[in-house]
Amino acid sequence: MRKTIIRSVFAGLATVIIASCCGGNTATSNENDAIKNIMSRKSVRSFTDEKITDEQMDIMLKAAMAAPSGMNLQPWSFVVLTDTSRYDKVFAGNFNMKVFKDAAAVVVFCADTTQAVRGTEERVPNTLWRDDLGACTENFLLAAESLGLGAVWTACYPIADRMGTVKTCLNLPAEVLPYSIVAVGHPDTENMPKDKYDASRIHIEHW
Amino acid sequence: MRKTIIRSVFAGLATVIIASCCGGNTATSNENDAIKNIMSRKSVRSFTDEKITDEQMDIMLKAAMAAPSGMNLQPWSFVVLTDTSRYDKVFAGNFNMKVFKDAAAVVVFCADTTQAVRGTEERVPNTLWRDDLGACTENFLLAAESLGLGAVWTACYPIADRMGTVKTCLNLPAEVLPYSIVAVGHPDTENMPKDKYDASRIHIEHW
Repeated sequence: MRKTIIRSVFAGLATVIIASCCGGNTATSNENDAIKNIMSRKSVRSFTDEKITDEQMDIMLKAAMAAPSGMNLQPWSFVVLTDTSRYDKVFAGNFNMKVFKDAAAVVVFCADTTQAVRGTEERVPNTLWRDDLGACTENFLLAAESLGLGAVWTACYPIADRMGTVKTCLNLPAEVLPYSIVAVGHPDTENMPKDKYDASRIHIEHW
Repeated sequence: MRKTIIRSVFAGLATVIIASCCGGNTATSNENDAIKNIMSRKSVRSFTDEKITDEQMDIMLKAAMAAPSGMNLQPWSFVVLTDTSRYDKVFAGNFNMKVFKDAAAVVVFCADTTQAVRGTEERVPNTLWRDDLGACTENFLLAAESLGLGAVWTACYPIADRMGTVKTCLNLPAEVLPYSIVAVGHPDTENMPKDKYDASRIHIEHW
């Protein structure tokens, strides 16, 4: 332990000296780990056979549920599949099974497409569930990246064939639709994020 | 600088000792800064009059453009408003102006709702633009949180009144729709994230 402490102190010292020499107070504060993680996220479509832990899945689902939602309705639910023998039944024919076959888990992000009318039992369409589920799926992917896992978002809604089989196989309630399907596991190769920055997409004050 | 180095070395030393004593290798690796940032994000609706820097806006927009998109179409564009005298014209009547009035910037997330047919000039509907824009907006909000800024996502699409005025005022092309509106600035009070974790939303293997 003593050696570790000494090594860490010197590493800390080196960092401080480098940061001070480069005068990069602004750069250091802005290039934080959360930003680095967002910029590092990539679609991972090929996995080793290593499992992920219950704790990792729990952290990713907690992150997913921390997404913002219109009027705080939180219209999301999750079906977590880890029994690989069921992947074919639920997904084959409509999805790229090459991606799913070695995934440690496949998570089906589901949306309650209705919302209660306040104070009554009446339910009416929720017009913002799709936006909430998009943010929710992205949070899960970012959490996976930060844990050293790989994941890929596959669209389900609004593709009728994909939705039909998944809804039936998973026994989803009538008002609940399968929105996105995320395969997650340990990446089996190094994957690089795309550089998608395009300054021409930014307009100042008006188009 | 010498004092800073010494202080940092001791802070580093303390961290190493605490980490070693608590033996929490798993906990430490999983509770990383990216996860903490996701769990800390909250809607901020009230701002000081402090401006945000061009660098901060650039980082947030880069994070937004790092979102995943179906077939990598990247259907997003951004209109950044910082001229507060225009906020009323673009948003009043349809949005909660209390939120916008002190925002250092209001960013309109726009979506190209079409996609090119490969190898031709024909454009057809893109059925996944809304999902991409959801992830894109969430990345921006997470980046804001990580920079110590506050932000709130306001829905625009599919609310006709909101979309109409924004589209006209910002001179958006016909195929481009205003999707979400994000007010961003320095929070003027402490805001706490909601705890939205709900284990009953998680289903194993089937609903």
